[in-house]
This record gives sequence, structure tokens and C-alpha cells, in this order.
Amino acid sequence: MSKQAPQRRSRAVRRTARLNAPVVMLPTLTRNIPVYEILDTEGVELIHQASLDLLEEFGIDFRDPEALAMWRDAGAEVAGQRVRIPPQLLLQLVAKNPEVVELHGRNPARSVRIGGRNMVFAPNYGSPFVRGFDGERRYSTLEDLQVFHKLAQMAPSLHLAGGITCEPVDIPVPTRHLHIADSLLRHSDKPFMGATTSRERAEDSVRMAQIVFGEIFVENHTVMVSVCNCNSPLVWDQTMLDAVKVYARHNQTVLLSPFVLAGASTPASTVGAVAQLNAEALSGIAFAQLVRPGAPMIYGQFLAPVSMRSGAPMAGTPEISLMNFMIGQLARRYKLPWRSSGMTSGSKMVDAQAAYEASMTMQSVLLSGANFVFHAAGWLEGGLTASVAKFTLDAEQMEMYYRFAQGVSVGDLDEVMATVREVGPGGHFLGTAHTRRVFEQAFFMPELLDNNSFEQWQAEGSKDAATRALEKARAMLDRYTAPALDPAIGEALSDFIARRESELPEGAA
Amino acid sequence: MSKQAPQRRSRAVRRTARLNAPVVMLPTLTRNIPVYEILDTEGVELIHQASLDLLEEFGIDFRDPEALAMWRDAGAEVAGQRVRIPPQLLLQLVAKNPEVVELHGRNPARSVRIGGRNMVFAPNYGSPFVRGFDGERRYSTLEDLQVFHKLAQMAPSLHLAGGITCEPVDIPVPTRHLHIADSLLRHSDKPFMGATTSRERAEDSVRMAQIVFGEIFVENHTVMVSVCNCNSPLVWDQTMLDAVKVYARHNQTVLLSPFVLAGASTPASTVGAVAQLNAEALSGIAFAQLVRPGAPMIYGQFLAPVSMRSGAPMAGTPEISLMNFMIGQLARRYKLPWRSSGMTSGSKMVDAQAAYEASMTMQSVLLSGANFVFHAAGWLEGGLTASVAKFTLDAEQMEMYYRFAQGVSVGDLDEVMATVREVGPGGHFLGTAHTRRVFEQAFFMPELLDNNSFEQWQAEGSKDAATRALEKARAMLDRYTAPALDPAIGEALSDFIARRESELPEGAA
Repeated sequence: MSKQAPQRRSRAVRRTARLNAPVVMLPTLTRNIPVYEILDTEGVELIHQASLDLLEEFGIDFRDPEALAMWRDAGAEVAGQRVRIPPQLLLQLVAKNPEVVELHGRNPARSVRIGGRNMVFAPNYGSPFVRGFDGERRYSTLEDLQVFHKLAQMAPSLHLAGGITCEPVDIPVPTRHLHIADSLLRHSDKPFMGATTSRERAEDSVRMAQIVFGEIFVENHTVMVSVCNCNSPLVWDQTMLDAVKVYARHNQTVLLSPFVLAGASTPASTVGAVAQLNAEALSGIAFAQLVRPGAPMIYGQFLAPVSMRSGAPMAGTPEISLMNFMIGQLARRYKLPWRSSGMTSGSKMVDAQAAYEASMTMQSVLLSGANFVFHAAGWLEGGLTASVAKFTLDAEQMEMYYRFAQGVSVGDLDEVMATVREVGPGGHFLGTAHTRRVFEQAFFMPELLDNNSFEQWQAEGSKDAATRALEKARAMLDRYTAPALDPAIGEALSDFIARRESELPEGAA
Repeated sequence: MSKQAPQRRSRAVRRTARLNAPVVMLPTLTRNIPVYEILDTEGVELIHQASLDLLEEFGIDFRDPEALAMWRDAGAEVAGQRVRIPPQLLLQLVAKNPEVVELHGRNPARSVRIGGRNMVFAPNYGSPFVRGFDGERRYSTLEDLQVFHKLAQMAPSLHLAGGITCEPVDIPVPTRHLHIADSLLRHSDKPFMGATTSRERAEDSVRMAQIVFGEIFVENHTVMVSVCNCNSPLVWDQTMLDAVKVYARHNQTVLLSPFVLAGASTPASTVGAVAQLNAEALSGIAFAQLVRPGAPMIYGQFLAPVSMRSGAPMAGTPEISLMNFMIGQLARRYKLPWRSSGMTSGSKMVDAQAAYEASMTMQSVLLSGANFVFHAAGWLEGGLTASVAKFTLDAEQMEMYYRFAQGVSVGDLDEVMATVREVGPGGHFLGTAHTRRVFEQAFFMPELLDNNSFEQWQAEGSKDAATRALEKARAMLDRYTAPALDPAIGEALSDFIARRESELPEGAA
């Protein structure tokens, strides 16, 4: 046995202990740092006014007869599908939206608050492909989705179980939403996301929530969040509006998010794109208030500028950051909770590009004060691929952003400066009483970012970050245990799904 | 020939055109966005006062008899090597430092300004190892260094040629500094960095600058920047002070940067670490003003918290960002130009870790308003390795940060909103007159971040970002041309090096 063996064993033991440490859930992040304001007040007001003028003078399409009737009744000018909204009406409706949305987990310890200084982090959403444990890209399945729901349950920095983290394409479309919600509700006790691809799928999502939380609880509490995109420019279509109606009537929250391909579905201008999507998002918020005054909606957007070279959406570019900062300022002007998208990337793999892009955007999202950070873990290839490795790496990065947003305290400066005098010139601080007392908490120590020597890293297999992340994800799954669920509720969920499967057409879209 | 060939050829032609496009040098970045202030005024004043109290009551070591005599003459209290500096003396001296340093390139078009709202970006510095075109890690050579100097000359976002981007370990230490400066002055006409490892090496650097710029010009203009680290905690050693004396006497600028291993050479506290390094940096600035009032010094630090687990310095952690923001606020309080470190990483390779870490820190450095962003390209492995791939990727990222810092303009909002009405619901903007006019400038389009489809990326070889970066670096070198240098000056440099090589001991340290 070599002389080094004991040390190696000890290192392995320490690593095992770390991997088996209890999961510490981070509560809602209450931001303790200032937001970053890129525009002065005049700039915010100019954009605000441009959005209101657009809605008043030019209008926006609501391609749904029921919605058009509701707008007409409320006093808007309706001509064909076009709705022109007087500014006073718009702002009166927007003012009915709560400033903070309380989102309940089926475990009350996992409930979160969205809005004000509160921030929550949610996983990737909507990818048809996956890069799983073998790293290969392929169509994703329900089994892959379950992996992501388990990982989200265990990741301290993720406040939501997620939704369609990846599409379970092995499940027929008409019943897919049932199995997605079932996986979410069984594998996690964090808040979850509902379906929006049709009115009846949204209603199924609400019914499943009612089974788990109870009907009365769901009518009075928000337990799920869904995402409805405006079809930029200036179209709310019937599918999305149907889902908004279902969720708003049931007091459930919706991300009312124009999906912006800046330069294609907006002008090629950051300020102009923001003015347009502000009009779009505000009209969606206002519509939800027509459905149910006080409905807890979330303002926001998904942003990707289009490349002139390839026509493809881009991620991690400076304009995305600039737009995030502006949108945050507008959201605060209206006192609306708002969402953005965090760890987005156009990279096809978990390489330096994936991290440069995700980080460039995420830091602006953090400092812009976004209340709901969507796509905070796992996103690759412009959202087409969900990656287990990136999910795990991103989740740790989100712990670091969480720590950052807790800010600094000057409270113990006197004690600290006494330590400097105690140590003196040329000394070192590792052994001081102050260091021994605070070190574990003083500096965040990432697990997936390797700061060992080159020789140590080489001895451990010269693994890149993606490889280490997959090892960590595997270790997390190995010690995953499902959160408690009343067996009667589990059975009721199964019964509901079986009934709906018998009612719904199989295989059709 | 397949039907697709013309399109493929056209893509290849476009790519070649892009690679052969003329190099556009970006001038000094004048920040057009606000800085981010994490502390309120009271917090800044508390740290300021703690630093002044430390220097007045406890003092700091200057381990150099000449420096001690200068401090005694100036009115400080000197006991042994310890110098206690009255606050009024300290602040009077600090106030003599210029607020903005004009740094001249040997091509006047490459001159830059450091301080105020101005920001400049400089390459990696000091790595003994390199990862070059074959990606392997090995000791670096003069040839490697020349590659970095050529790439820095060509990178639009890098304002300096650099210095010891990697150590040319094939050149004996006593004459190494001569060949570093020679490579800088021949391969680039951007401002360069001088040696600080001894008094005579600093003097050699100044003499080489005098050969190129002329003696009188150098006495009256700043043409080079050097880096002198305080040995934290609280020690300025003779080597560093000798270099400061040489450069300050010659009106050349020095980064007076405590090299901080937070938790080991400072307290385990972000606020405490900042208070200590503020004292260290201010005492260095003040000392330079004793040498030559008005000497153009640059305040700052190198920051790396120490991991409790491995004892290794960490990169890209939240505390580095927190400290950067605080240091920026202090620098502005003293109206001092200041430096930070940008694209640092502990990763051993150009993987996701390298980019997560570099980006996490760089964005805070940008928003903290650092005037001199050191290590803005190429840094790996805690500075031990300089990477050609990362250098190239980082340089493009710096172009994106540059663009970001130019901010937004609401000036053409009316025109843009008219375009929104012109396009209308469900339309698209790519064909509008506004888009055609502004698109190339409206959104930054990165070259190294692949936003093509998965299929296109696969057809091009499924290359990761590091591989593509090496291809770009190779293409840059292929079209590199040395900037013009008067042959008589080139000869004079060679003569000087030959003379010094005959005078200096060969091979000794």
C-alpha cells in the first residue's frame, strides 16, 4: 500500500460525506441587494407612454370571441379582433393584480412568494430533446422527465418542481399533460406548473391540483403556475386565452410572457422591443383581471434576439441583459411580480459556450430583480434540449446567485478589524478565532467547480465540469426519496388519470 | 454535385469573408451605463474609516530602508519597519494621484484612458503553463508568448498588448524581461506592461520604452503599466517598492494591488477583507506620491477567496463579486483609477466551469466600473495556465461586455414604434426599412457562440466552443501582420538587449 493511500481514502470519505449530506432547501430568496437601473425615470416613462399609446391608438388582437366580448363590456374599443384599450382602463385593471403572489407547495415548507423583493428559481421548460446520463442527445421520455422532477426536488436552489422540463414524447399528446402533472405531484412537494395547450388540459391540471390540495384550498390559494405566451407581435390567440381564463378563474397564476424573437417579432431595437412587449404583457395582465379581479398574474417575457447571419435566436448577448434591466424597471413601475429567463444558451452541448451564455444573462436577471427566474437550470440549444449535466451545474450556480443576493453586512467590522491587528504583517488568518467561527459560512464553496491542483484533478481522471455534474446527479438520484403523499390521494390521482385516458382520444394531437 | 453545394459554398465564402474582415479596434470604453452600488454611503464610510484607523493606529510594514526614510521625512510615525500614517497625510498624498491616467501606445491610435468612466481591458498575466493549439498543458515558451502578443494586437476588445501573458521559461530569468518587452514592442503597437521583479529589471523596461518612444516623451507621458502586489497582510516588500520607485520616478503607472487570498491573507469576511486591502492599496498609492507627486498610480486588488475544503484559491464565487462592488465604491470615493481582474477561473481546461467562473466575476467587474480590467482574456487554473482557446473566447466576450456598457438609447423610440404599427399583429419585422437600416448594429452577433441548428452544427463537426476558438485563433495568426516599427528603433532594441545580455549573469535567478 502506498504512503498516500490513507490520504486518498480520507479524501474519498470526505467526498462521500459531502454527497450524502442532508438536502438543505433554500427558502424564497428575499433580495438584500439593490436592483440595477439602467434607465432614468424619464426613460422608463417614455417606454411606458409608448406602450400605452400603442394599445390605445393602434390596439392589439385578441383572437377569441369570448375575450373580445369581455373587452367590449369593459369599455375598450373592439373592431374585428382588434382591441384598443384606453390607458385609464388598462392601468385600473393592471392595478388589481397583486404585487406579491403566494405560491403554495403541497408541503407548506416549500411555499414561496413571487414579487416585491422576493425571487424564486424554476427549472428549464419545454424541451423535446434530452442529454441524459450518457450525454447523447435524443428525444426525451417520461422517465427522463421523472429524473428532472426528482433532481428539482433535491436541488436546494430550485423553488419549483418544474413542469415540462423535457417533453415526454413517449406519451400520446392528448393524455401527456396528465402524466406530467402526475410525475410532478408524486416526485416533488414543491410548487408545480400546469398545462396551457388547451382549455381542457388546463382544467385537468386544476382538477389534479384539487385532488392533492383540496377543492376549497385551491379556490383560495395559488398552488400552480403556468405559462401563456403572447404571439408577438400583438396577438393573443385563443389557446392561450382559454388557458388564461381557466387559471385566472381558479385563482392560479400565469406567466403572461411575450415570446420575443427580437428583430423578427419586434423591431430591431432593444428599447422598441421592450415597449412592444410591455404593451403585450400589460394587455394580458389586464385581460386576466377582467376574468377575475385580483387574479395573481405574473408579467414578463422570453427574450432572444435573432441573428442576422443565421436567422437563429441568440442567447447570452448584451442586448438580452439590457432588455432585462429595462423590463425590471417597468415591472416595478406597475408594482407587478415579473418573470425572466435565467440560464439560457444556444449551445448544443455543455461546453464553455453554454456557460458563457447562461451566466451573461443570469447575472443581469439577478440584478434586474426578476421575481420568477424561469429556465434557471438545464437549458441547452435554445431550449430544444434539456441537459442533466447542465441542470446540475446550473443549480449550483443558482445557489451562488442566491448567496450573492443576500449581500454584505458591515455589522461585525470592528471585530474583524481587531483580528487584522491580532494577525499583523505577514501573518495568516486561518487559525484565528474569528476565522474558525465563520469560515464555513463566510465564503461559498462550490462542489462542482474544481479548485484542486492540476495534479489532483488529473489523478481524479481529468474530468470536465459536465462529467462531474453527471456524477453528482447520479449520486443525488441514488439517495432520492419521494416526499410523503397520502396513499388515498395517490390513488385518486391514478383514478382520475385512468378516467381521463378513457375519455380522451388516444394519439391525436 | 449535390443540389446543396451552392449553399454550402456560399456559407463557406461568407465565413471566409468574416474571418478576413479588417480588424476593428475598439477605443477606450467610456461607460454609458450606471455603476452598481452595493453599499450605502454609510457602509462606504465605515470601511473607509476602518482602513484609516488601521493605518494610523496599527500601521503597515514597508520593508525597505529608503521607503522608511521617506515616510519619516513626510511625517509618518516609523518604528522598525512599521509605518503609522496620520489620516490627513494619507489623504493628502492620495489626492495627488491623477483621477485619469492617459496611457500612450506607440501607435497614438491605440492610446487609452484609465479612470473616471473609462474602462480598458488587458490580457492574462503571469502563467508558467500554456494550453496552445494542440490543447495540451505544458511549460510555456517565448514562442507561446509571441502568439499571445499577436492575438492581443488583433483582438478588437483588448486595449493592451499585455505583459507576461505566459512565462517564457525557455529564456533564462536574468534576461527574460528583456525578451518579453522586446516581443511586446515588436508584435504590438498597443500599450504594454513592464517588469517588476527587481529594480534593475524595471529600469531596463523603462529604457526599452525610451528607445521606442524617446526619452523626453517617456518622462512626460505614461507609456507602460506594471503590477506591484502588496504582500497581504500589511507588508510592502523591497522588491515591489523598488519597482514602484523606478516607475513612479519615470511617471509610469503601476497597479498597486494587494494580492488577496481572502480568508488566508485577510479575515474570512468580505467587508473585512476590503477594509484591509483598501488600507494596503492606499498606503501604496500614498508612497508613490512621496516618490513623485502626481505619479499616475492605479488602485486595486487581486481577489481569490480560499476554499476551506482544499485550501485552494477559488474563482467565480459570489464573494468576489461582492468585494468588487465594494472596492469600486471606495475607489470612486478617493477619485482613483482602479483595476480588477476579469475572466479568472480555477478550471484546468476550457469547459463549462471556466466560463461560469469567468463570467460570474467579469459581469460584476463591469458593473462595478473597474477602469483597468486585468486578466480579461486567457486565464485558466487560477492563473497557472494561459489558454489560447480561452483567450480567443474571452476576447469575444469582452466585445459583448463593451457593447453592453454602451447602454441603451431611447432617442429613436417614435420611429421604432411607427414600425410596430406598420408591421401590425402577426407580422414580422425583418423586411422593414428600420430593420434593414439598423440590423447589423442593433444586436451583437457573436462569431464563436454557435446558434446554428443542431443539424448544421453536427454537419460542421460537432465542435465545442474551445475547438472553434482555436480555429479562429489560427486564422487570426495566419493574417497577422506586425505593426510598423522604424528599423532603426528595432535595431536599437536589439543592441540594448545584446548589451544587457552580456552584462547580466546568465541563468541565475
